[in-house]
Amino acid sequence: MNRDENYMQLAIDMAERTIGQTSPNPAVAAIVVNNLQVVGVGVHVKAGEPHAEVHALRMAGDKAKGATIYVTLEPCSHYGRTPPCSKAVIDAGIERVVIATQDPNPKVAGKGVEMLREAGLEVETGILKEKSDRLNDAFFHYIQSGEPYVYLKTAMSLDGKIATSTGESQWITGEEARQDGHTYRHRSDAILVGIGTVLADDPSLTTRLDGEGANPVRVIMDTNLKTPLQSKVCKDDAAPTILFTGNEVDPDRVEKYNEIPHVEVIQLSTPTVEVSEVLKQLGQKRITSLLVEGGGTVADAFVRAGKVNQLISYIAPKLIGGKEALTPLEGTGFQRLQDAMNLKVISTEMLGEDIKIIAIRKGG
Amino acid sequence: MNRDENYMQLAIDMAERTIGQTSPNPAVAAIVVNNLQVVGVGVHVKAGEPHAEVHALRMAGDKAKGATIYVTLEPCSHYGRTPPCSKAVIDAGIERVVIATQDPNPKVAGKGVEMLREAGLEVETGILKEKSDRLNDAFFHYIQSGEPYVYLKTAMSLDGKIATSTGESQWITGEEARQDGHTYRHRSDAILVGIGTVLADDPSLTTRLDGEGANPVRVIMDTNLKTPLQSKVCKDDAAPTILFTGNEVDPDRVEKYNEIPHVEVIQLSTPTVEVSEVLKQLGQKRITSLLVEGGGTVADAFVRAGKVNQLISYIAPKLIGGKEALTPLEGTGFQRLQDAMNLKVISTEMLGEDIKIIAIRKGG
Repeated sequence: MNRDENYMQLAIDMAERTIGQTSPNPAVAAIVVNNLQVVGVGVHVKAGEPHAEVHALRMAGDKAKGATIYVTLEPCSHYGRTPPCSKAVIDAGIERVVIATQDPNPKVAGKGVEMLREAGLEVETGILKEKSDRLNDAFFHYIQSGEPYVYLKTAMSLDGKIATSTGESQWITGEEARQDGHTYRHRSDAILVGIGTVLADDPSLTTRLDGEGANPVRVIMDTNLKTPLQSKVCKDDAAPTILFTGNEVDPDRVEKYNEIPHVEVIQLSTPTVEVSEVLKQLGQKRITSLLVEGGGTVADAFVRAGKVNQLISYIAPKLIGGKEALTPLEGTGFQRLQDAMNLKVISTEMLGEDIKIIAIRKGG
Repeated sequence: MNRDENYMQLAIDMAERTIGQTSPNPAVAAIVVNNLQVVGVGVHVKAGEPHAEVHALRMAGDKAKGATIYVTLEPCSHYGRTPPCSKAVIDAGIERVVIATQDPNPKVAGKGVEMLREAGLEVETGILKEKSDRLNDAFFHYIQSGEPYVYLKTAMSLDGKIATSTGESQWITGEEARQDGHTYRHRSDAILVGIGTVLADDPSLTTRLDGEGANPVRVIMDTNLKTPLQSKVCKDDAAPTILFTGNEVDPDRVEKYNEIPHVEVIQLSTPTVEVSEVLKQLGQKRITSLLVEGGGTVADAFVRAGKVNQLISYIAPKLIGGKEALTPLEGTGFQRLQDAMNLKVISTEMLGEDIKIIAIRKGG
């Protein structure tokens, strides 16, 4: 790792800790280095607040003159709530700009770099690009498709079971894996389950990272509006709840749910609740990332719709057995092996005694 | 890693390459080091041939005088086909003996060390013991239980499927994983499948490591003796075939199979073929290791009988889905989660695009 990569790696490490808090903006970090001294560091804390470059330049003050700035994402070039970051970089007297990856918005990609170069700054791009892209998988996907990036989280035994044949399913994985699972609730804008899961488990769907963390919007696929008014997602206002139903539900019943301040029923124009329609509507609500937690029929529907971007799989070192035991993907599945969804494994690691596998959709 | 561990690691690396060829003896290697020069190396090549120490001492010749010998397993102390290795070590003039692990046979454990110490040699034990024990998991288990060590090999998708809901199952994992799977055929004394697999796939059950490798004895659990006389395991004499049947099969039919030179039918005294009985009988035939390859009902039976020592799991980065799709363990399974078989993950690695997980039974 050369010097530029070394500083960029630090910037990526900084940005990584902010994933989930900047939505609908990307996670970004910047470092100002003058004469091998780090003189400014910054991250984008929250949408509506200053960009990472602005914080880092502010900290650097006069020391930004003649310095290099490392930034994980191309500085913006457009006037929004604030003047463009590229202008701030130029005005601060920065001489050299090192960028990990381009703006994902094709309309403005490269414009920031252009503005910097026209002002006479030396610009290098593509340093640790792949790692930086991964930081903002969800953001980039959302910008380009208008739909949330979908994480599918599963937990199973080494023989692919999520429960015994009698349906017993608690505590398949250990505490470390469960806590890790909650980080995905924290970093996702929304969490989705099917009505089966609501009826079976009455989950709260909140983030419980030792009691802390942001709660995602709760989304239930509930074709016939069977979510009980007494369920936790309806009673507990810790997060907004969206219920997607088909068009055959009586509007009077819908009205009852909509009277609850944190609950919204979205009645689709079709009798069934299709994955593609759910994602379209969530995208319009600026939900950039969605965590699908189950059950198996919902997971199968997302996979068959081609809408899973990343799989987070926790595997407990157990063998449960049983032809009738439930697996992470139920439903109809793919009939032909050649149609199966192909993924690329990004990482495998041990969490306590369990294995965690991250895999992304092949080809992006 | 200190100097002793460094030499012992090399000895373990040498012994590891011989796993499978020394049955029913363990894999063992030895290194003679004099004045920091490696002057002798040896492995046990095959049962009936000299032990590793003898080869290494022979190579060292006079240079064994005053030298250190590193050996992965305690030198033997009993007179068998050859004089005891401990005596050979003493006679060669060795001054110091470094041993990874004790003889697994409780009747002779420690006797080799005793003989060496009585002759005035310096002896150190337990150097890289755990790694060395793993080399001979199968051997140690066999010596202590009289039954073969059981490897269960499975290959599944990331959602725990071995086939689609229509039964299509070819090529779930890639070429590297398949070749790796064949190394377990090579290193196992026997391979076992159920009659269902024979009828569905007509497998040859031979080792095909780029066309090389030793063939394991083929064992079929075939309660009603339904293996076709035209099947590959009956027609092809590449390896002996043992068919276990229940006591309700007509002896005349059994006779037809026994006429085939490489085939033997073992008719049990019970109507069903129980895992524990199969292992007992195979142990009596000096089968020290058994590779269980399926199908799911057989795998489930071995797990429920508590007879799986090691799981080799290959996971293909695919999602297949489907409530009806087959999984690696079918059958009845465990009803209660607390009864599930617990394992400890020993390693996870990538083989091409697939994941390989090795896990051993918790507590041995």
